[in-house]
Amino acid sequence: MSQNAFDQKKEHILAEIHNNMQDLSPKGTIDELCWPIMNLVNSHPDMITTSSCSGRLSVFVEGNKLHNEEMKSGGKGDGGKWLFVTHKHEDVANWSQNLSEQVVYTTDLQERSLEASARYILYKYEPFILHVKCRDFSTASKLFSTAMACGFRESGIGSNNIVAVRVNIKLDVPIGYLDHSSQKLIFFVSKGYIEQIDGMTLSKFSENTKKMHELYDKIESQIIKPAQEVPVTKAPQETKEERRERKRMEGLLRQQQISREKDGIVVQTDAATQD
Amino acid sequence: MSQNAFDQKKEHILAEIHNNMQDLSPKGTIDELCWPIMNLVNSHPDMITTSSCSGRLSVFVEGNKLHNEEMKSGGKGDGGKWLFVTHKHEDVANWSQNLSEQVVYTTDLQERSLEASARYILYKYEPFILHVKCRDFSTASKLFSTAMACGFRESGIGSNNIVAVRVNIKLDVPIGYLDHSSQKLIFFVSKGYIEQIDGMTLSKFSENTKKMHELYDKIESQIIKPAQEVPVTKAPQETKEERRERKRMEGLLRQQQISREKDGIVVQTDAATQD
Repeated sequence: MSQNAFDQKKEHILAEIHNNMQDLSPKGTIDELCWPIMNLVNSHPDMITTSSCSGRLSVFVEGNKLHNEEMKSGGKGDGGKWLFVTHKHEDVANWSQNLSEQVVYTTDLQERSLEASARYILYKYEPFILHVKCRDFSTASKLFSTAMACGFRESGIGSNNIVAVRVNIKLDVPIGYLDHSSQKLIFFVSKGYIEQIDGMTLSKFSENTKKMHELYDKIESQIIKPAQEVPVTKAPQETKEERRERKRMEGLLRQQQISREKDGIVVQTDAATQD
Repeated sequence: MSQNAFDQKKEHILAEIHNNMQDLSPKGTIDELCWPIMNLVNSHPDMITTSSCSGRLSVFVEGNKLHNEEMKSGGKGDGGKWLFVTHKHEDVANWSQNLSEQVVYTTDLQERSLEASARYILYKYEPFILHVKCRDFSTASKLFSTAMACGFRESGIGSNNIVAVRVNIKLDVPIGYLDHSSQKLIFFVSKGYIEQIDGMTLSKFSENTKKMHELYDKIESQIIKPAQEVPVTKAPQETKEERRERKRMEGLLRQQQISREKDGIVVQTDAATQD
């Protein structure tokens, strides 16, 4: 991709972001907790954010399995129904009270088994995610390794030098099902259990915010400031730096593999460290 | 990396895999459900698998939060304790019976709140994951796009042309906590609830197996067979093919973004589709 095309696209996206930030309607806007890191990333001439979510709690009814075999567990899917979504920790407490008229609690499940077509109600915490399009592979690699160094271990580079920055701070809990005949929400966990997982969600919001701050600081110190210090003279090859970067990434991958081994996932060999 | 270094490493890893497959001890071996896809991938001269997990259910006590602030929710962490791990769907039923002497069920949580240092018991399903080191970026891109096309949407390319093939079929459920004084496992969900999530885990094992088969077939038809048909003559530039590949990946990314939008994650722009 030519430099010009990247610059054009960046300009176009920045205009959209600007409009979006001005539009204060609750739906369709970029959640404001992402703004600082987006602005930081976009201050670099070779990066532009293309999508983001600051982290959120959602509760939803799964889509209809009978009519959509491809609907995957864990996602809302077609025909699914949002019961609650928030990006804000202060909205977590008491969310279930808003639904109280539709909810029936039952813990008497021992003797019951749900039909295969049951549509579960899922309670889900998903952490911060950010996609950044980079001008070139070298910039993408730098962002990737910076994210990995902060523990965003599910990050990866996709096509078109787009880096996905991902971390594994999740909750994915079935809490009930939709009763087809009454259309009531049957919760097969107790109110006390809901309070427990709400508390855990609050911890995850905090942990997530901390990780976002770490990432902000690392991107600033490792990528933004160095780029400002050196006047932008695009050398066609930066062999020395690329080598340093590669060595650093090898170290990160080794760390990641050691961590995976600790987690009990079998690692055949630390292939990345023996070049 | 020179072709020679890749070939050396591949030979080294293949020898390790071979030894590993012969070693039938339960711990430290590659789980055999991964063998077919590993053998398929490794039959290609430009790819070598470096780690794998066929998918698993695990139940564990979190590590000690007070002594290890960095211990992250969702992982076993230092000081954590495995209660159960299996890669086999036939082991899922009745796992909790093996622990029955250590377990106390309580659903009376309304009036109780756990200390901040509570070590939760987590019940977790993790899907198939595969890391593949490729000879070059072109091969890595091909594998990445093939994985994305099968719905392995959390895939990405890391350093050294290592592709992580990941899918989001998860369960991540807090089911209790460790009582410090008695060292008992306090389950704050009911037996009926455990049966429910065991049933969901079985569905996830099936879904996961189906995805692995899809991936196997797509890798075979898109990458392995074409490589066998054409005698391996390494052209330094395959511009036409690369262009086709890029266009295909752009389509995939667009699909992914549309899917993310459906899931309620705000997409600023479909940057990947307007090059």
